[in-house]
Amino acid sequence: MPDLPEFKLKQCLIVRADIRMTCGKKCAQAAHASIGAYERTDRAVRKTWFDEGQKKVVLKAQSERELFELKTIAERAGISAAIIQDAGLTEIPPGTVTALGLGPARSEEIDRITGGLPLL
Amino acid sequence: MPDLPEFKLKQCLIVRADIRMTCGKKCAQAAHASIGAYERTDRAVRKTWFDEGQKKVVLKAQSERELFELKTIAERAGISAAIIQDAGLTEIPPGTVTALGLGPARSEEIDRITGGLPLL
Repeated sequence: MPDLPEFKLKQCLIVRADIRMTCGKKCAQAAHASIGAYERTDRAVRKTWFDEGQKKVVLKAQSERELFELKTIAERAGISAAIIQDAGLTEIPPGTVTALGLGPARSEEIDRITGGLPLL
Repeated sequence: MPDLPEFKLKQCLIVRADIRMTCGKKCAQAAHASIGAYERTDRAVRKTWFDEGQKKVVLKAQSERELFELKTIAERAGISAAIIQDAGLTEIPPGTVTALGLGPARSEEIDRITGGLPLL
């Protein structure tokens, strides 16, 4: 077995799968969610995560409501969260909620919230 | 005509299209590139871009070499750039160069470098 790095912190990017977006559009929403949640995270946690190689997992949710529920649960657990609304200049109506960014936060804690979600 | 917001700054996320990655994997690479280039950008520029709504464009390149060429050209123009190498724990071999993040920077300046690239 190779000696794999052990990640202690990770960020989850959760993209809605119930609205039609191209893969490029999904990439932009995931990156918005990443920067949004990162900006809301404590500086020391951010730095540790970045130095560890900024582990990210991209997951999917089936509704706007699911994103807001996950956001509420995460915030109660002290995990930074950012809901993304698209400006809607392309593909989807303005103001559409497209994604949620969570963390970086400790992997075990974030898994407790997002563990049931499938990979995008 | 609605009064559309005028973006002055943007970030370009350029993902390799010549290697096989799922859409979720591409999203993760785009988000790595976004955070990587953001971290290398001047604080005042970062803040302005974030407050403008963090405009991002996701583009594609056809080779690793193309990403390195774009990086060199961008850096000569004073634009922050981050090459992403994947840890390769999933889907692709460790160390594979997957994406390039540029900016945020002034839209006209970044367009001069990436204007010829197709959307992902």
